[in-house]
Amino acid sequence: MLLAIKEDGGPKGKQVVTQVQALIARGALKPGEALPSTRLLAEQLGLHRSTVAAAYQDLWAQGCLDLRPGAQPRVRPRGGLIPAPPAGAPGFPWEARLADLGRLPRRPVRPEGAISFADFTMDPRLMPVAAFERSLRSVLRRRGPEVLAYGDPQGQPGFRALLAARMAQHGVAAAPEEILVTHGSQQALELVLRGVARPGDAVLVETPTYNQFLRLLGLLGLRALAVPEGPGGPDFAALEALVRRERPALAYVMPSFRNPTGRSLDPAQRERLLALCGAAGLPILEDGFTEEMKYFGRAIQPLKALDRSGLVIYAGTFSKILFPGLRLGWIAAPEPCVAGLTALRAAGELGPPPLLQEGLEDFIRLGRFDQHLARLHRCFRRRMDAALAALRRHLDPAWAAWEAPAGGYLLWLRLTGFDPALDLEAALARHGVAVRDGRSFFPCPAEGPRWVRLSISTLDEAEIARGIERLAVGLRALRGT
Amino acid sequence: MLLAIKEDGGPKGKQVVTQVQALIARGALKPGEALPSTRLLAEQLGLHRSTVAAAYQDLWAQGCLDLRPGAQPRVRPRGGLIPAPPAGAPGFPWEARLADLGRLPRRPVRPEGAISFADFTMDPRLMPVAAFERSLRSVLRRRGPEVLAYGDPQGQPGFRALLAARMAQHGVAAAPEEILVTHGSQQALELVLRGVARPGDAVLVETPTYNQFLRLLGLLGLRALAVPEGPGGPDFAALEALVRRERPALAYVMPSFRNPTGRSLDPAQRERLLALCGAAGLPILEDGFTEEMKYFGRAIQPLKALDRSGLVIYAGTFSKILFPGLRLGWIAAPEPCVAGLTALRAAGELGPPPLLQEGLEDFIRLGRFDQHLARLHRCFRRRMDAALAALRRHLDPAWAAWEAPAGGYLLWLRLTGFDPALDLEAALARHGVAVRDGRSFFPCPAEGPRWVRLSISTLDEAEIARGIERLAVGLRALRGT
Repeated sequence: MLLAIKEDGGPKGKQVVTQVQALIARGALKPGEALPSTRLLAEQLGLHRSTVAAAYQDLWAQGCLDLRPGAQPRVRPRGGLIPAPPAGAPGFPWEARLADLGRLPRRPVRPEGAISFADFTMDPRLMPVAAFERSLRSVLRRRGPEVLAYGDPQGQPGFRALLAARMAQHGVAAAPEEILVTHGSQQALELVLRGVARPGDAVLVETPTYNQFLRLLGLLGLRALAVPEGPGGPDFAALEALVRRERPALAYVMPSFRNPTGRSLDPAQRERLLALCGAAGLPILEDGFTEEMKYFGRAIQPLKALDRSGLVIYAGTFSKILFPGLRLGWIAAPEPCVAGLTALRAAGELGPPPLLQEGLEDFIRLGRFDQHLARLHRCFRRRMDAALAALRRHLDPAWAAWEAPAGGYLLWLRLTGFDPALDLEAALARHGVAVRDGRSFFPCPAEGPRWVRLSISTLDEAEIARGIERLAVGLRALRGT
Repeated sequence: MLLAIKEDGGPKGKQVVTQVQALIARGALKPGEALPSTRLLAEQLGLHRSTVAAAYQDLWAQGCLDLRPGAQPRVRPRGGLIPAPPAGAPGFPWEARLADLGRLPRRPVRPEGAISFADFTMDPRLMPVAAFERSLRSVLRRRGPEVLAYGDPQGQPGFRALLAARMAQHGVAAAPEEILVTHGSQQALELVLRGVARPGDAVLVETPTYNQFLRLLGLLGLRALAVPEGPGGPDFAALEALVRRERPALAYVMPSFRNPTGRSLDPAQRERLLALCGAAGLPILEDGFTEEMKYFGRAIQPLKALDRSGLVIYAGTFSKILFPGLRLGWIAAPEPCVAGLTALRAAGELGPPPLLQEGLEDFIRLGRFDQHLARLHRCFRRRMDAALAALRRHLDPAWAAWEAPAGGYLLWLRLTGFDPALDLEAALARHGVAVRDGRSFFPCPAEGPRWVRLSISTLDEAEIARGIERLAVGLRALRGT
């Protein structure tokens, strides 16, 4: 075996490894062929014997050599490298299963300078980053090893106690044992569906509703049952008939500032819904994703506040009122429900990072969150007023209609006289304004009017006014084309 | 309506609300009964009219009053409060589904002063907390609003590029597009099972194997197919027969320092396994949970390094080598597989917090992680040596056997002559030492010898020596009882 070790060729053991690999690769060393012992090779090359021994160990670990105590080192017959399949070969069946899961759409590229009513996230200009950093640092200094270790699979106890206390401010009586901390409310929705429903079951949804919830239903093999909605709210007679006929496993409801319409149920509608579901023993998944964003008038109590029977499972989140990237939300539900969902979640993953839970707890206990929330309310009262004024000013009520929401970030436009085949998002983007086409929020593609969802979450008053003016110009140009 | 507003009774609007609620509660105000107008009540009580109006709004929001423009305020008939079911009433069917999910066992209470070989987590004394805090702070200062916003659902691009580069050090060629960042490897395991297998499918597991994986199979309605194992490793003939007969959907393998045995597959076994699975088109889920913990001898390449066909899905994690509480792991797999699993995960939740991903990226890029890893290797080489020496010194090979692992944190004891009904964990705890009974790691309860898993992850040399002495005393006392 001919090896040439160079003084300036890098670590010598490494040179041995590379050169033996090369000899094997080009067939100069054949499978089964013996190599010199470590002693002999070390003498030949003028190396320490331990250097050669380490190089042989490396070659063994890479599967190149057979090393057995007392036997000569030999080149291993390579059996295991699985080659790439020939081009055009049929795939494995499990590849088709993965392909069925679909792909996330690429984020749309927005034209430079476009004003976006499409983004539904926290305005970076309103994020209290420095104050949160202080809370994180404080927790790391006080409890570093604890918050970087495995946490309580149900959520950190102190953070759960705090969430329970905040729920009490909304009239909801929940003990810390009745709280499960989740990765945002999105995980809460998935866990409840997986825990309560079985593939093939039907789930009641408002019309229109959160599009990602519809996607989730599809992935879990569940059917969406759309509750028809009139101008004043859900059609309760139709809802009752659906419940009787289809025996759904769950009702999914966003009572406040619903995504995408911004609408809320009034107290009478909430009670009627509860009475109806209570009589049928139908559990309700209440999505309170922007519960805290009531900035016009008084906050209406959540459904969960009116329930003593354990029928309502409440899902909350900090994503729409603080930092989406913390991925922190929660479920409030009867203890047996929370225990089952905790077990389900723990089998899949062990829960949100304790550091972020305790950091947020510190931030809230120091009053920093309530300060931030008060600022958000002041800010969005002005922004929503600006949006409503701009809509009144620029849009023609003959073909564009909307309702004034009592809070939240969303406006929902109903547009008549537009080509059903028109790609509204792309066409409006050419007018410098990004919106969400309302269609994806309907369980079944809706006929008739076109719908547009406007989120004002990341825009200030001036941007809103300019954006709605552009929207109006765009819509006028597109109408009847 | 008789209200008495006190000067020292707190906010006056709040007093109006509380007193009206009390009147309704005790029936002094009946459903449908009219209340004074805001103007009239304000005059009667000597309050601002706006105070009364706000109080009425609060009562409306709580569902107590009907308020309509131009009409008198009236007490609402309360229809919606769902009462608690009578004691002993039969539960709803969906409650049974939740109960089927089980409950997490409570954490066992350890006697004071017990030495724990049961904890398999990072030693708090070895956590580089301060260095990580600096990385977090640096990321928050540079990119605060970005890392606190929604991130890339597949994982932050820079962090994925870094993980891809680290995989290359293990001989695995993976592009950043072929990486999915997960909430620890636990989420990786669940995602792969949900993506590749369907309820009723069989999944091959080593014997014994990670107990939480067996739990996960059960929750997902999958069957564990145990590959028999001899003294030298898996029984490949039996494995081949199982694959032919049962057509499993997946093979789950921990090639290095397997949990619970600490055993590793040698290069020849790895190649044989790959050849067998490759011929059957059977995907392999490779769990590299302590890949980096090879501190005796040379690292063996992962299965994934030998695969060009896309059959191997690799799962890695930082939980066992840095901070378990970050909940950061990853999948390395062909791009279509990663795309499907990303879509599946995104429907349930939007991925690990960007702040922690970029904080860890900073920590690794600055060399802090490699420093930490080198320290871990030095430390656990000593600790494992101490454990092996203590075992040799205190245990009797006539009834206790073990193998020396090449890395990792785990030792696996085989014990003969013990009562099969003995609660080993409880009995040894009374001797001041906590261990994990090996039974939960077997797909089917094993007959014959008893097994004990020892984790040395949180103990220093002195604690290990003392703990193994206690273990030996305990086992001697319990043997043959």
